[in-house]
Amino acid sequence: MLKPLGDRIVIEQVEEEEQTASGIVLPDSAKEKPQEGKVIAVGNGRVTENGERVAPEVKEGDAIIFSKYAGTEVKYNEKEYLILRESDVLAVVG
Amino acid sequence: MLKPLGDRIVIEQVEEEEQTASGIVLPDSAKEKPQEGKVIAVGNGRVTENGERVAPEVKEGDAIIFSKYAGTEVKYNEKEYLILRESDVLAVVG
Amino acid sequence: MLKPLGDRIVIEQVEEEEQTASGIVLPDSAKEKPQEGKVIAVGNGRVTENGERVAPEVKEGDAIIFSKYAGTEVKYNEKEYLILRESDVLAVVG
Amino acid sequence: MLKPLGDRIVIEQVEEEEQTASGIVLPDSAKEKPQEGKVIAVGNGRVTENGERVAPEVKEGDAIIFSKYAGTEVKYNEKEYLILRESDVLAVVG
Amino acid sequence: MLKPLGDRIVIEQVEEEEQTASGIVLPDSAKEKPQEGKVIAVGNGRVTENGERVAPEVKEGDAIIFSKYAGTEVKYNEKEYLILRESDVLAVVG
Amino acid sequence: MLKPLGDRIVIEQVEEEEQTASGIVLPDSAKEKPQEGKVIAVGNGRVTENGERVAPEVKEGDAIIFSKYAGTEVKYNEKEYLILRESDVLAVVG
Amino acid sequence: MLKPLGDRIVIEQVEEEEQTASGIVLPDSAKEKPQEGKVIAVGNGRVTENGERVAPEVKEGDAIIFSKYAGTEVKYNEKEYLILRESDVLAVVG
Repeated sequence: MLKPLGDRIVIEQVEEEEQTASGIVLPDSAKEKPQEGKVIAVGNGRVTENGERVAPEVKEGDAIIFSKYAGTEVKYNEKEYLILRESDVLAVVG
Repeated sequence: MLKPLGDRIVIEQVEEEEQTASGIVLPDSAKEKPQEGKVIAVGNGRVTENGERVAPEVKEGDAIIFSKYAGTEVKYNEKEYLILRESDVLAVVG
Repeated sequence: MLKPLGDRIVIEQVEEEEQTASGIVLPDSAKEKPQEGKVIAVGNGRVTENGERVAPEVKEGDAIIFSKYAGTEVKYNEKEYLILRESDVLAVVG
Repeated sequence: MLKPLGDRIVIEQVEEEEQTASGIVLPDSAKEKPQEGKVIAVGNGRVTENGERVAPEVKEGDAIIFSKYAGTEVKYNEKEYLILRESDVLAVVG
Repeated sequence: MLKPLGDRIVIEQVEEEEQTASGIVLPDSAKEKPQEGKVIAVGNGRVTENGERVAPEVKEGDAIIFSKYAGTEVKYNEKEYLILRESDVLAVVG
Repeated sequence: MLKPLGDRIVIEQVEEEEQTASGIVLPDSAKEKPQEGKVIAVGNGRVTENGERVAPEVKEGDAIIFSKYAGTEVKYNEKEYLILRESDVLAVVG
Repeated sequence: MLKPLGDRIVIEQVEEEEQTASGIVLPDSAKEKPQEGKVIAVGNGRVTENGERVAPEVKEGDAIIFSKYAGTEVKYNEKEYLILRESDVLAVVG
């Protein structure tokens, strides 16, 4: 099991289709498109300068969208995960 | 449904007419012009270093103006949205 | 109506005469000269890290001077406004 | 009257003699030399992240020295003033 | 014994196999891959601006993964260690 | 009299001999060497974000060493002083 | 005596052997190697934004390792010292 620290979370990335049937990539706009993932594990949350721990807003099993280049890839038990900070999560989908 | 995290909000962008009848763009000044949008969903608000959550000032349905290059484009159920931080919102129109 | 958020204010800019009778611009010094404006609307104020909202010092109708390149231009009901942060206001005139 | 905001103050700059009798500028050292001024008006002071306002240490009429390139020039009722932050004031002379 | 200060920890790095049988390095992606280590000693934790010390989340003996270029190499009693800040630890494995 | 503001102090710089008898400068190392001074006046101390004023650790008459390029030169009553922040003081000698 | 201010400490640097018998420097890796020292004097500790002073973790006589390029060299009574911030200390050895 991977137990992320502080405000970090572990997710499985969900690959999106970005190609047309003919295989051509069709960018929608110049703006950065976010990625989708599923939350696998959640840290205890960050500690504020007041010494209080902030409970994370996401929970295991949540489908999320997150900033494209955020996070660090981790391979664990032959599977690929991504470790993000909760602040890289834009929204929960559901 | 998209549930934004922390001080984030989900909006639908409102396209403004920026061209004259003949199709020529007429910039008003060199300063950056803000964009308009409608608030679709609102996060729980940011948490201060004192550990308190700050209630957002905007609410669902508000018409807002926001900084031009702020936010991340998201496509959800075939519709385009923009996820902003509340601090990118300049004013509520109404 | 435009309701600015947080520590933002909406102002109408007051144009100053910067030319001599013959139309020549006479810069007084190399230092940046501030601008004048009239306060149209005031936000609720910023929230400190202690979770307290700080009441703005300016109020509707105040004549102010502010940093030259501060703010964002907004057109609303065919009129031009400027949205500033209160921290861009140097002084109230009166 | 000019009422500065927050931790700002309004001063009249005092010109110092920097030339010898023959008109040659004699720099004393490569280090930046500060300027002198007289305090005309004082703001209410800055607000800390605890939500408390910090009473300014300078008061109207104080003679001060301040960092050379600090502040913004303002012309008001045909007179030139300088608006500084109190943190640009190095010392009170007297 | 090495007793790390504040939010620092001492770890032994665990070398991962990164080569195929034929000795060719096979990078999985362009993203930075984290490293593995075992916690040898833990500091007392950082002190917040409230003056409270935050208890570390990791403990001696924990297997961790951490950011690749984090930390400082230390040789002590003929053995190599790495001193990290706890914030460089991504997750505890176990 | 010069009364420094906040966490500032006024010092008289003590010139150190840096040359050999033959007048050749002998730098000891590539690292920056600090300077010596005598404290002439002390400010009231900085105000923390909690709104509390921190009493300075140095006092009038203290011999101090400070970072070489810190501070602002001030000439007052024909004498040269240096205004530093207390945080530029490395140690009190005595 | 040298009394360091705030979170500063005074140390004597311990020179390490970095050469082989034949005099050739054998760098172990490209990573920065820390230095060793002995604590001679300890400041009162830093003051947090809450106005509380944080007691230092190191004490006189401690053997420490610290970041290579940290600190300022000071010569006092013909001896060389180094003044560091406690945050530059990686670990106490003992």
